Amino acid sequence: MKLFMNVKGRLFLVPNTLGSEDIGKSIPQGIADSFENVSVIFVEHEKVARRLLIQLGLKAHLDQFELVSMKQGINKDVGNKLTSTLNQGKDAAIISDAGCPAIADPGNELVQIAHRIGARVIPHSGPSSILLALMASGFNGQQFAFHGYLSKDSSSRKNQIRVLDKRVHQNSQTQIFIETPYRNQHVFSDLLSECQKKTKICLAVNLTMEDEWIAVNDVEGWKKNRPDIQKKQCIYLIYK
Amino acid sequence: MKLFMNVKGRLFLVPNTLGSEDIGKSIPQGIADSFENVSVIFVEHEKVARRLLIQLGLKAHLDQFELVSMKQGINKDVGNKLTSTLNQGKDAAIISDAGCPAIADPGNELVQIAHRIGARVIPHSGPSSILLALMASGFNGQQFAFHGYLSKDSSSRKNQIRVLDKRVHQNSQTQIFIETPYRNQHVFSDLLSECQKKTKICLAVNLTMEDEWIAVNDVEGWKKNRPDIQKKQCIYLIYK
Repeated sequence: MKLFMNVKGRLFLVPNTLGSEDIGKSIPQGIADSFENVSVIFVEHEKVARRLLIQLGLKAHLDQFELVSMKQGINKDVGNKLTSTLNQGKDAAIISDAGCPAIADPGNELVQIAHRIGARVIPHSGPSSILLALMASGFNGQQFAFHGYLSKDSSSRKNQIRVLDKRVHQNSQTQIFIETPYRNQHVFSDLLSECQKKTKICLAVNLTMEDEWIAVNDVEGWKKNRPDIQKKQCIYLIYK
Repeated sequence: MKLFMNVKGRLFLVPNTLGSEDIGKSIPQGIADSFENVSVIFVEHEKVARRLLIQLGLKAHLDQFELVSMKQGINKDVGNKLTSTLNQGKDAAIISDAGCPAIADPGNELVQIAHRIGARVIPHSGPSSILLALMASGFNGQQFAFHGYLSKDSSSRKNQIRVLDKRVHQNSQTQIFIETPYRNQHVFSDLLSECQKKTKICLAVNLTMEDEWIAVNDVEGWKKNRPDIQKKQCIYLIYK
């Protein structure tokens, strides 16, 4: 009996689609098997997580899962919930609203807790806008850095962009960042004004969606042919 | 007729497994549909690519694909092959030996060619050891950098590690790199000798395989309890 009590549950990290209704091309179907012993799922929005579970064919099992929101952050209650679940030998999972949990998305504090108590953490493959954009950019995939969101303040953001542009040319490191859709035009303008003329910019818009759109041009080229990316999901990559 | 001639083929970027025989948990089955109009596939090793195609259920279609090796690099012939394929309105694909094409793997020069001639580049989701390890580390997923392989020379490698360790503590940026399996013990020793005592190291070993093993500890902790990772597939992450 004591031996059984020592067996910890596992924490599965489950990627979600990037918004596509069709999971066939983005989520491996076999992930569904991982939910057999899962009792608690940590989510951003219940509705979005539930949609993925249904798409994975788990509709009949929805009642077995307790969904715990991470929307208010990983507070003590949320952390304790994971600890007690894993200590009881039950599995848990994290599903974020889009893409991979804990990457440009909440979840990493829960992963830390799992490691701290010695539970196994099992990451599943799935869509990541960062990786998809990097693959499709043709830029350096051997040296790259992701910076999340740049500053909301235009003058600090311009400073940041100049630093990133320097790293591209000095260290041959691809620079990647994201922006909230309604601020895209501002950020793109700052990129065109602050980067060197020869710097290449890849815009990856609405990845995995019907209207996915990925294009590469240098600063001069983009200035002559400026796309409308306002209010679209866009990820930015710069390289030389 | 002219209109038809102007339609370019598409370049699909197709992730491979990280070595697992079972693709169910790592590759979305729907990717198979993309091969309908594919005539040329750029590969590292034909055998490895063929295995994936069979696992995707495309055995009956193998004859329709011309496999072109990228093993000798993307020379002029290889580049011309892609150009003529896409210009003829036929689709092409890239499959690397493990994980995502063009990320710590060949393929990005072909992606550049596709962009240059105005063909669509379509990246597919799948396993990436970098992303899986980062998710499972619990480290900062909002700021991270991937460095590929560090130097083969021990003294330069130690220098590099000290620089990465500084970036962890000064910029809160997760540092990620890989190493060839037979050099793992050397690199791990250098990490333990060059990083600060409080620096956390995540080792992600044999990802997606039966014996997958992911653990986090600080330098002091690892020194007391040193695992044998020699000749295993390992990805290294450091953070504070």
